[in-house]
Amino acid sequence: MKTRYGLLILLTIMCLKTNAQQPANEGVKPRRQFTLEDLNFGGKNYEAMSPQTLKLWWDGNILVKADEKPVPTKYPKVFTKEHNIYIQVSEEAEEKQVTTDGTREIVYGESVHRNEFGITEGIFMSPDRKKFAFYRMDQSMVTDYPLVNTFERIAVYEPEKYPMAGMTSHKVSVGIYDIETENTTYLDLGDTIDRYFTNIAWAPDNNSLYIIEVNRKQNEAKLDQYSASNGKHLATLNTETDEKYVEPQHPISFLPWDSSKFLMWSQKDGYWHLYLMNTKGKLIKQLTKGPFVVMEIMGYCVDTKSVIIRTNELSPLQSNFFSVNIRSGKRVLLDNGVGVHRGKLSEDGSRLLDSYTTPDVPRAYNIIEVKTKKTTEYFRSKNPWEEYAVPHYRQGSLKAADGKTDLYYRMVLPPDFEETKKYPTVVYVYGGPHAHNIDASWHWNSRSWETYMAQKGYIVYVMDNRGSENRGKEFEQVTFHQMGQVEMLDQMKGVDYLRSLPYVDSDRLGVHGWSFGGFMTISLMVNYPDVFKVGVAGGAVIDWKYYEVMYGERYMGTPEGNARGYEKTSLLSRAKDLKGRLLMIHGMNDPVVLPQHAMQFLDACNKADVYPDFYVYPGEGHNMKGHMSVHLHEKITRYFEDYLK
Amino acid sequence: MKTRYGLLILLTIMCLKTNAQQPANEGVKPRRQFTLEDLNFGGKNYEAMSPQTLKLWWDGNILVKADEKPVPTKYPKVFTKEHNIYIQVSEEAEEKQVTTDGTREIVYGESVHRNEFGITEGIFMSPDRKKFAFYRMDQSMVTDYPLVNTFERIAVYEPEKYPMAGMTSHKVSVGIYDIETENTTYLDLGDTIDRYFTNIAWAPDNNSLYIIEVNRKQNEAKLDQYSASNGKHLATLNTETDEKYVEPQHPISFLPWDSSKFLMWSQKDGYWHLYLMNTKGKLIKQLTKGPFVVMEIMGYCVDTKSVIIRTNELSPLQSNFFSVNIRSGKRVLLDNGVGVHRGKLSEDGSRLLDSYTTPDVPRAYNIIEVKTKKTTEYFRSKNPWEEYAVPHYRQGSLKAADGKTDLYYRMVLPPDFEETKKYPTVVYVYGGPHAHNIDASWHWNSRSWETYMAQKGYIVYVMDNRGSENRGKEFEQVTFHQMGQVEMLDQMKGVDYLRSLPYVDSDRLGVHGWSFGGFMTISLMVNYPDVFKVGVAGGAVIDWKYYEVMYGERYMGTPEGNARGYEKTSLLSRAKDLKGRLLMIHGMNDPVVLPQHAMQFLDACNKADVYPDFYVYPGEGHNMKGHMSVHLHEKITRYFEDYLK
Repeated sequence: MKTRYGLLILLTIMCLKTNAQQPANEGVKPRRQFTLEDLNFGGKNYEAMSPQTLKLWWDGNILVKADEKPVPTKYPKVFTKEHNIYIQVSEEAEEKQVTTDGTREIVYGESVHRNEFGITEGIFMSPDRKKFAFYRMDQSMVTDYPLVNTFERIAVYEPEKYPMAGMTSHKVSVGIYDIETENTTYLDLGDTIDRYFTNIAWAPDNNSLYIIEVNRKQNEAKLDQYSASNGKHLATLNTETDEKYVEPQHPISFLPWDSSKFLMWSQKDGYWHLYLMNTKGKLIKQLTKGPFVVMEIMGYCVDTKSVIIRTNELSPLQSNFFSVNIRSGKRVLLDNGVGVHRGKLSEDGSRLLDSYTTPDVPRAYNIIEVKTKKTTEYFRSKNPWEEYAVPHYRQGSLKAADGKTDLYYRMVLPPDFEETKKYPTVVYVYGGPHAHNIDASWHWNSRSWETYMAQKGYIVYVMDNRGSENRGKEFEQVTFHQMGQVEMLDQMKGVDYLRSLPYVDSDRLGVHGWSFGGFMTISLMVNYPDVFKVGVAGGAVIDWKYYEVMYGERYMGTPEGNARGYEKTSLLSRAKDLKGRLLMIHGMNDPVVLPQHAMQFLDACNKADVYPDFYVYPGEGHNMKGHMSVHLHEKITRYFEDYLK
Repeated sequence: MKTRYGLLILLTIMCLKTNAQQPANEGVKPRRQFTLEDLNFGGKNYEAMSPQTLKLWWDGNILVKADEKPVPTKYPKVFTKEHNIYIQVSEEAEEKQVTTDGTREIVYGESVHRNEFGITEGIFMSPDRKKFAFYRMDQSMVTDYPLVNTFERIAVYEPEKYPMAGMTSHKVSVGIYDIETENTTYLDLGDTIDRYFTNIAWAPDNNSLYIIEVNRKQNEAKLDQYSASNGKHLATLNTETDEKYVEPQHPISFLPWDSSKFLMWSQKDGYWHLYLMNTKGKLIKQLTKGPFVVMEIMGYCVDTKSVIIRTNELSPLQSNFFSVNIRSGKRVLLDNGVGVHRGKLSEDGSRLLDSYTTPDVPRAYNIIEVKTKKTTEYFRSKNPWEEYAVPHYRQGSLKAADGKTDLYYRMVLPPDFEETKKYPTVVYVYGGPHAHNIDASWHWNSRSWETYMAQKGYIVYVMDNRGSENRGKEFEQVTFHQMGQVEMLDQMKGVDYLRSLPYVDSDRLGVHGWSFGGFMTISLMVNYPDVFKVGVAGGAVIDWKYYEVMYGERYMGTPEGNARGYEKTSLLSRAKDLKGRLLMIHGMNDPVVLPQHAMQFLDACNKADVYPDFYVYPGEGHNMKGHMSVHLHEKITRYFEDYLK
């Protein structure tokens, strides 16, 4: 990496050649302009500055670099090819096919339930690596959504099994394969229609499997134990209900030193907390408590009989590591107490790799000795944007539409910002569950595009409304059965604030978002047609009835059961209210928010004599990556340049 | 219909109420502005003024209005439902199903070969109405293009059998159904792969069928006679070849007074003319000759032994009726010798309904006694735009890029046009075969959108380049194997002319076209990136390899056989050269120019860091109609307003 001084010399030379930059003198801020490529879309610039990010792993309790010592493959290795499961028992052994009738209709060993309920994989190795559990999903009864591949000589039909809210969903079962005997045993689940089998965990003794089953209505979660040898149901250890919805996202986690006890996650007291239970189903105690959420179990320190967790106890904008003594419940902060921390615990639980960022630190790594809290700095990134004309990143809070809840915002201001000028301002919004935009990471978690826009003379404003993550159950569930409604009220509080600022040009307000944020963008445009002059909505949900069963019904119920909610939130009947300039963008092969959303809205606009704009990325899915992301963000930027500036 | 005076009074009253119009005084032109609805997209305003247009028919030789005396249904009535043929022998009889295995793969009684070669129907009743011939098309071997219906609860796959240039095409055969015996006989055609059976005609004695067969290469047309009783091939009466292509578009036509002679159409001398032949296959004589084209046989006058035809002999911009004596070949002009005429001959051939329009006459009907030329005016439309601020419509000609061929143009100028001002100017272009834009009909055949644009302050310029219709074979075939290339050279002659005019703003030139005209629009944008600031291309062909076999291979050969021509004309590799603002528009269910064209071009732009705009009409086909046409034209207009004005 070049030193700052070296870069300045380089810049001076470049100026002589191109006249593109201001002469750079020591003490005068250099003014290099960002290109979209500089901003490294699809990744974050400062991650490119610390390539170690993804290449460190624990070999026992020694941290090693993967490029010096690769992560060894664990055998038996189990994997999938074209919807079937394969196994390779040792490096020398041949691959062996475990299932044979896998198709796009019968899927083995893959993530199910459209990755909801924290599901990200479909194969679960037993602790002794002698068996594995796997998902089998029968989606033959699910309607095909007709996606099209337009890249072949003649375009090809490439259907996607997509169960829409209120429609027939797939059937999931769980099998257990015994690697030695080569026998497969399916859990004795009975009729699996409309049942979600989530958060699979092995018992430490390898003899049973724990599953959290959720009903189709998603208001009940049962923790069930099944025999790993004959698949029989052994016990129901816990049942949790909620008048809105339950949403288990973490498997139970056994104490390494006591296989009769485990930690269970629940949001039942209003926040995600850990509960100590035994295998008889007895609740021993609530281990964590308070107005904050537990985000992750990093692992256990056997020596101190503690669990290492990550929480936002210190601030809703932070996440920090704590060790929690299982017996006493005492929490000890392990990290520096600022910023946003992620990490990995060594295998024996004695050392923690702490990868963190703060508003001023792009990226740093510490190694923390769990017992002593002794901390060694392993790496600290230089500011990768040192030589650029960097915008101003501000963070603040205001009250939600309920008058009491704190909401956090970030504001990005042009590098040459002056209070006396008036700037066109764009509200960037996501607003949906399972996500947040503002935290105490570098530049308050600002996305590169905000920097690009600020450089072009815009203010960008981002606020996490109620319904977003990490703020507790009430904060999240206030949107129940009426997605977008409360979220809009909150966002408009942000807009009120913006309009109170002398340097925000209220006649030049824009809004932009993707996915749920696209839904929010259009919702705001049609509900507040005189507020937003320009909007860009990408991959936008238009009507929740076109969204999938798992996510869709959790928040919105079924179109039949919550007809009023669906009607109220649908944008189809609101097309006529569009007044500002709206650019909609969609990946033509989006299997998440299907192209039908965009097509239906455009047709409604066409019928209502309304004139939105539209752009597509053929072959792209729900999110553009690499070059297409660069093109996309330039496209978005140009739209604001055309109509907001 | 209101008188002009009445309208003026009405206008005056409206002005008092709304202040929207200037006070209208006698002698001062009223200034009512057109809305798109006034301009009646999807139809022509002046046709709305003469509703008789489509409702007149000959009962023998008496002209009657359909709303006073409906056209009687002829029995036996033969029709199709869901790809099968049905018959109803009398008004009282039940419908009877003739074919039973019709599907979207096996199609009975419908137009085949994608409506090329003048084919518009699939059932051909014999003169005595005792038999009918019908097409059977097996397209099971043709690749499906995956169109999608996004209007259902869950979008539905609606594939379209679409044989692309160079790919496997459908197989067509011809059956004959005997209504009395209920027997079906198929013509003995042998292997029908890559053979086009076109222009079916019955012999007057009902015993045989004449078909013009074209080979896949489309450089040979054979006139064949088949037995209607056993399907055997009886004779080949004529074979015509061409080094580029033949394109029969009219069945042979028997003389009513001599069933051993018929008229055959051929372009072999350079223009479409009629040739008198006998059923032995002997050419008796060329009946018409000269540098003009015969457009239509209206029918025959038995008394005078003449055929009534429509030609453009008087001017390439006109079409007029002539009677041609079969024996002497003498042509007699029947109509007033100006404008564009269409019409219908009475059943006995004695009277002609002459529906015509001239640059000054929106629509008029005469009845012409064929023998005496005695003409009676039946209807004359008032000027439907009398009360509007109407643009100026000019017509002229210039030389093509070959320096010798006359090309005709139309120019539409704003109502308040002043020579000393400079106007943004839009070139509207089609440019493909089988069509023309400029003729001697009302306002020189100007489309309503041109009036709308002129009203908004644009000049619109339209020119028929070489390759368009009605100008002879050489004029048409100069584009062979390199579509768009010569057409562009000619269009640029028009642009040179525009740039020579002091009132055309050369810095604000736009271009717009649909279908072939969309192809021309993008071709012009990428080949002359510094000329056109703004373009709008609808339903555009991007690469001829995605177009269908019949039309595509006639003009372009196969992608393998004419690799250079396909490469040269493809716009995919030219995306990088796009510089001006381009809006592409496509009907998402376009079965003619498939959405794949747009998707491929947009992807090429995305990859080349080029930024076109795009809009779609979900559920719409190749051309928008009714309300969607109004929306479309407003969308197009707004794009020029945004970027060209």
